[in-house]
Amino acid sequence: MHDFTQLMEIAKDKKLEKRIVVVFPEDESCLYAINQTLKENLASFIFITKKDSEEIDKFLQIYPNHTEQIKVFTYEEGAPKAVQLIREKKADILMKGMICSDILLKAILNKEKGILPTGNTLSHITIAEIPTYHKLLMFMDVAVIPFPTFEQFIQMIGYATKLCQKLGIIEPRIAMIHCNEKINAKFPHTLAYQKLKKMAQEKTWGETIIDGPMDVKTACNPLSGETKHIVSPIEGEADVLLFPDILSANTFFKTITLFCQAKVAGMAVGASCPIILSSRGDSGESKYDSIISALATIDN
Amino acid sequence: MHDFTQLMEIAKDKKLEKRIVVVFPEDESCLYAINQTLKENLASFIFITKKDSEEIDKFLQIYPNHTEQIKVFTYEEGAPKAVQLIREKKADILMKGMICSDILLKAILNKEKGILPTGNTLSHITIAEIPTYHKLLMFMDVAVIPFPTFEQFIQMIGYATKLCQKLGIIEPRIAMIHCNEKINAKFPHTLAYQKLKKMAQEKTWGETIIDGPMDVKTACNPLSGETKHIVSPIEGEADVLLFPDILSANTFFKTITLFCQAKVAGMAVGASCPIILSSRGDSGESKYDSIISALATIDN
Repeated sequence: MHDFTQLMEIAKDKKLEKRIVVVFPEDESCLYAINQTLKENLASFIFITKKDSEEIDKFLQIYPNHTEQIKVFTYEEGAPKAVQLIREKKADILMKGMICSDILLKAILNKEKGILPTGNTLSHITIAEIPTYHKLLMFMDVAVIPFPTFEQFIQMIGYATKLCQKLGIIEPRIAMIHCNEKINAKFPHTLAYQKLKKMAQEKTWGETIIDGPMDVKTACNPLSGETKHIVSPIEGEADVLLFPDILSANTFFKTITLFCQAKVAGMAVGASCPIILSSRGDSGESKYDSIISALATIDN
Repeated sequence: MHDFTQLMEIAKDKKLEKRIVVVFPEDESCLYAINQTLKENLASFIFITKKDSEEIDKFLQIYPNHTEQIKVFTYEEGAPKAVQLIREKKADILMKGMICSDILLKAILNKEKGILPTGNTLSHITIAEIPTYHKLLMFMDVAVIPFPTFEQFIQMIGYATKLCQKLGIIEPRIAMIHCNEKINAKFPHTLAYQKLKKMAQEKTWGETIIDGPMDVKTACNPLSGETKHIVSPIEGEADVLLFPDILSANTFFKTITLFCQAKVAGMAVGASCPIILSSRGDSGESKYDSIISALATIDN
């Protein structure tokens, strides 16, 4: 799988069966993504709105069978309403519009009325199409967990493995990122990596190839490992990069999108449904690719 | 200044006046860089060697006036010998060959016989030529300081400012990198950034424009800030990226070199001379560019 077009093919197979609830679809990029999805006949939408909107009215007119509007009286009601629809199985995917991430996350994580199964950790996966890499590259976490603990890494690997399998990657290669290959107590994540590697060998997550610590270049370039005499089962062919923290993950995200013309899509994982948590800087196209990614990887 | 060719012009003006001492020039990429430098008549060399080498003999034969060899009996003597030559002003630039960075750093940092002026912190600056950025971009620290403290950030900014001025950047724009623009006690470097920004306004480092926290995209793309309604004097035109730690700096380094065809050069700064601390993965060309960068930015 090397580009979003292929994800689209998978998503198309699920045509209109899935319902996306959007909390306050007011910004231009969000409306663009909704329009593309409706035009391509990929899913139906439930719009949670407060103020009247010409754009939404248009969608309701043009696609009466695939759109629906639910009005709320205050902005505070928006996120809980969307989460409730997911709980009641009236919607399959949750999408953020013009609402602060923190407020949406609060509703998702609410212990009584939220949608995070007990024992799960919410995390975030980005899928990148980098012109200079020969396949799609997943990485985490740019949005939800600032400094993953060992327990959180365990769950993150589980989510990544599951997502890869949905995309037909039978034995995903997961590289645990650091600045070199040394296990060093001054960098506690390298100690976690050591244990996670052992757990992978014991098939904790099924068929996966997990290795690290290693740097981004060793993870994604076969020649780089050779030069440094590093022998790794990743072989410079990583499907997933697991970053040690949000600072390095965000640096990777911003660098590939700014300097390498990468296309990215993303979603929060771990809740009972995929959550499209796009951020202010994301383009309409990126939000559309995120919808496609969610549709392509959602359970049937 | 937008590419290494321009650095080369500056370096050429200092032709042969500077002497580079290389500790164990044995690896192919190091020999390549030396050969290029001698061919271009840019500097002279002192080789610290232990075993006989055909390549070194050739250099001594072809360039008798610009090369010199000092033999040591054990590998342990190599780094202290080179450092001694710098102390005695018999050499101007120190370059790492086939020697472990830790051993070289130990000799450099030695309190009695080293070359780190009292009160200085050793740090590292990378200079990158990224095809998709319109000028050279400096960033730090990928090699020496894992998690800079507030005091270390102060010194790093000083080194970066000085280096920029050597390259003719009169008012360098220094972006302090984070994953967003929020000051947050959970990320102590953002508190340091706040203080550093105030110090910059008080002209602590002379004419500099310093802002942050901000992400890589906001630092290097004028449109990104606009979209997010961020008003910053950096204006998406950073000359220098100051990363919060070695993990994010290394991620940036590896990503631009692997996926964006960036050319990079680097040197350790803060000691009484520039130090070329190239690492295993660096190409001969990158080592050559590092020599050029050191020559272009060294004091006359």
